[in-house]
Amino acid sequence: MAKYTIGLDFGTNSVRALVVDVATGEEVATSVWEYRHGQAGIVVDSSDPHLARQHPEDYQQGTLESVRSALAEAKKKGVSAKDVIGLGVDTTGSTPLPVDASGQALALRDGFRDVPAAMAWLWKDHTGHAEAAEITKKAHELRPRYIAKCGGTYSSEWFWSKILRCLRVAPEVFDAAHTWVEIADWIPAFLTGTTHPEKMKRGICAAGHKAFFHPSWGYPDEEFLSALDPKLAKVGRSLPKTAATVAEKAGGLSEEWAEKLGLEPGTPVAVGAFDAHLGGIGSGIQPGTLVKIIGTSTCDMMVAPLSSELPDVPGLCGIVPESILPGFYGLEAGQSAVGDIFNWFVNVIRPGGDEAGSHEALTRAAERLKPGESGLLGLDWHNGNRTILVDQRLTGLLVGMSLHTTPGEIYRALIESTAMGARVIVDRFEEYGVKVERVVNCGGISAKNRLVMQIYADVFGRAVAISRSAQTCALGAAIAGAVVAGEEQGGHASFENAVSAMTGVLEETFEPIPENVKIYDRLYAQYRKLHDGFGEPGHTGDLSSVMKELLAVRDEVRGGA
Amino acid sequence: MAKYTIGLDFGTNSVRALVVDVATGEEVATSVWEYRHGQAGIVVDSSDPHLARQHPEDYQQGTLESVRSALAEAKKKGVSAKDVIGLGVDTTGSTPLPVDASGQALALRDGFRDVPAAMAWLWKDHTGHAEAAEITKKAHELRPRYIAKCGGTYSSEWFWSKILRCLRVAPEVFDAAHTWVEIADWIPAFLTGTTHPEKMKRGICAAGHKAFFHPSWGYPDEEFLSALDPKLAKVGRSLPKTAATVAEKAGGLSEEWAEKLGLEPGTPVAVGAFDAHLGGIGSGIQPGTLVKIIGTSTCDMMVAPLSSELPDVPGLCGIVPESILPGFYGLEAGQSAVGDIFNWFVNVIRPGGDEAGSHEALTRAAERLKPGESGLLGLDWHNGNRTILVDQRLTGLLVGMSLHTTPGEIYRALIESTAMGARVIVDRFEEYGVKVERVVNCGGISAKNRLVMQIYADVFGRAVAISRSAQTCALGAAIAGAVVAGEEQGGHASFENAVSAMTGVLEETFEPIPENVKIYDRLYAQYRKLHDGFGEPGHTGDLSSVMKELLAVRDEVRGGA
Repeated sequence: MAKYTIGLDFGTNSVRALVVDVATGEEVATSVWEYRHGQAGIVVDSSDPHLARQHPEDYQQGTLESVRSALAEAKKKGVSAKDVIGLGVDTTGSTPLPVDASGQALALRDGFRDVPAAMAWLWKDHTGHAEAAEITKKAHELRPRYIAKCGGTYSSEWFWSKILRCLRVAPEVFDAAHTWVEIADWIPAFLTGTTHPEKMKRGICAAGHKAFFHPSWGYPDEEFLSALDPKLAKVGRSLPKTAATVAEKAGGLSEEWAEKLGLEPGTPVAVGAFDAHLGGIGSGIQPGTLVKIIGTSTCDMMVAPLSSELPDVPGLCGIVPESILPGFYGLEAGQSAVGDIFNWFVNVIRPGGDEAGSHEALTRAAERLKPGESGLLGLDWHNGNRTILVDQRLTGLLVGMSLHTTPGEIYRALIESTAMGARVIVDRFEEYGVKVERVVNCGGISAKNRLVMQIYADVFGRAVAISRSAQTCALGAAIAGAVVAGEEQGGHASFENAVSAMTGVLEETFEPIPENVKIYDRLYAQYRKLHDGFGEPGHTGDLSSVMKELLAVRDEVRGGA
Repeated sequence: MAKYTIGLDFGTNSVRALVVDVATGEEVATSVWEYRHGQAGIVVDSSDPHLARQHPEDYQQGTLESVRSALAEAKKKGVSAKDVIGLGVDTTGSTPLPVDASGQALALRDGFRDVPAAMAWLWKDHTGHAEAAEITKKAHELRPRYIAKCGGTYSSEWFWSKILRCLRVAPEVFDAAHTWVEIADWIPAFLTGTTHPEKMKRGICAAGHKAFFHPSWGYPDEEFLSALDPKLAKVGRSLPKTAATVAEKAGGLSEEWAEKLGLEPGTPVAVGAFDAHLGGIGSGIQPGTLVKIIGTSTCDMMVAPLSSELPDVPGLCGIVPESILPGFYGLEAGQSAVGDIFNWFVNVIRPGGDEAGSHEALTRAAERLKPGESGLLGLDWHNGNRTILVDQRLTGLLVGMSLHTTPGEIYRALIESTAMGARVIVDRFEEYGVKVERVVNCGGISAKNRLVMQIYADVFGRAVAISRSAQTCALGAAIAGAVVAGEEQGGHASFENAVSAMTGVLEETFEPIPENVKIYDRLYAQYRKLHDGFGEPGHTGDLSSVMKELLAVRDEVRGGA
């Protein structure tokens, strides 16, 4: 009898439940539920473009609706809910929310239901940029080992920036909170009835990459947090001494949730992790393989054996033992916006009139162009830069416009700019001795847009494979579910076994086209000038050749003068 | 009995005839005729975006159609063609065309009718950029006095760049040409039957600003031209020793053209000049007044007494005695694209879907924004930079985009970028002792778009007046017609008299708003960093503060964090 696990993937706008055959990785049923609150699930504030919150009600209702609906679909294929042997959870992050002493989310309590500061602070909430700078400065002064592990700069997207921000601007929420929890930890906790702060497990993934946790010292110490703000130490005291990997159980499914979902009580639920980390697993991550999870933003994941000598890598979001796979360092990089930039152009700028401005039409127009033909070059910083500059106070840039520049040319330049931003990350890995032998892309854009994949292969000068699953994050979560279920219950004894059984790549690999690589190498040299010139404080360089070189490439490619 | 003159204004896409009352400046009738050849009158080449040509047939047919139609309209108001006492002509430039030994345009002869190189090389044809660089280099080596008068850099838009380019890429056309003539000279010549090279007068305006002519040395000498190319000396030998001001007659209307147009034979036709120069006159130019003629591109005109000590001004297109008004130096600066940039955004990018992307809708959206609120800043170099960098190998740039950036914000940023480009010119005039006490704008955008005018006033920190006439170039040409007609015939004895009688400004003046001036001063500091960083060869500066300062201004203006 085949056994199944469910991966629950909490994204930026919706949650997905995926029912997976643990022997083959076959995805037998899936269901997506769109969050109800705010705009497409995001509570925003028109006076502050940095603010982005989510309501925890959406996580609970979303779990219910998506799992039930996926199970109903699975049932049509003869899959019985009784054969579901485990669950795993992945979420966006850092997305912390304040909870009370019982582990209840404040925004689920009267008086706080409509208070944005009491909701989950979504990864892309950048309201804490001043606090991030403060934390960065203080860590360099007092705890350089903290900041070294996250690339030298603490981001406004991360745990402590958001909590400190809340303390400053919404003290009534801060005071009412007993502690703060990443939703990656809180969701498995409510499913297993372990939200009480003394019972709740905290995942190493969120803790290590976003909250200065390290197995050798735990969470940040009281002296450091007090130096930021005496009140902040309260949160530090509320945190446990240890953090768990996704190979561990958060607990067994509670009676209440088992009944709600139609599953067996006690079904093991894995400790949660970020979408990208479990997406890395769902894409078959291993040493030498860079997994790029390309969605609204990207996460770029690598692993390296715990036995290897890894230096701290400047600008890398984090190097955390076992944050992806047990037994390996997890290395996380990423870009703050990729699909979001293409969506901005299509949905906000809406170029070319109504018919010509769809992703499909713009992709067709962009496909007709050769690399370098438009004379355009962009910086992909519309939502800041996560790696390697780790600076949210950066913005998009486009150079090379003429009076003939078309929407298709701009669309292609936006794609190219994200590819070059990605190459900066590849280069940084390699500069610090982490060889990138193979790139596996996953996420919606990877499967849907061949042009994007070819441009990435050409800009990287490396073959690009596509993950077989279109839902690698949910698949990774289901793999964690299969591992915590264990071999005896029909799951897997280890991640190595589970990954080998349950993942793969598509047959078609995008190979770099040599003449395109040559052009993109030239454009990338100009990209680096813009990148360093606008992005590195105090950098001085000569940018006066940028427009000229772009025009020279354009003229060469067009074959005219 | 009232007397009238006709101003003929040959623009980029059409020709306008304007019938003006010489006593009051009242514009009694006007008619526009769109050129027939190419795209909107411009013969283009899809493989080379730099190419822009016009067919001389359009100038002749356009004269016929526009004058006849304007006279027919005037007749309805009781104006008799017999009371037309003079004509003046203004044209784009530098727009030279090759002619044979009789002064006939090559493109009007069999074998050359469809040859783009045999047509008029429109001002915005930039195919000769390599030749321009060559001429600049050679002039610095051999004839520094030549290049000093045009700001240190010879442009690809100008006379010799185009002729040298033709020699290189279309030698059959070059060989067939006896000489090359600016259309500002050729049109009055065909109207007066003086196209024969020995009879044809050359205007000081085109000669002095675009062709290295100076009264003290004439056109460039044979040694210099031979150094560029031995064959080029032929053109030098075909040119006269002197050049004429617009106070002089090109001749009297020929029998043939008098009959065609329904005017009196012998009616005086003034020597032609560029649209901007006669537009300056039509806007009431005088010392201390900067006249900005804002159209697809701009020309920025000033005059200074011939008796004043004027240094050479780096980056200024030219300082030429009597090129605008007799008795004064004419100073010409300009921007290679202004209205063209707004038109590109509306017509090529077509943002916001079909309804929201018109100039009117985007202006309404832009009006709702405060200065600095968008966080955007642009470089207005989509068609290169005419002043003060004199470099066509530059391109547009936009920085500060977020995922929320709207088309209205971009539209406003494009307007602001042109205002800042204009301020660079104002600053350059003043740095070299030419005080700008008053700004008079003219051209379609000035009268039509109050937002643009207010932004200009705020960016300049100076009051901006609008020329009363919406057709200042044609009016200036009509004023020249009134001067060459002379007082005895019912015209004017001098330009001073004619300008005083026939021009004025609108009652409403746009005053700078102090709080906007403050913001724009901060943005302008960043604009100069971009301008110098991307535009000045070898310049090194720190641009890493640009995005930060834009965000700081944005946050302050929004009053948020």
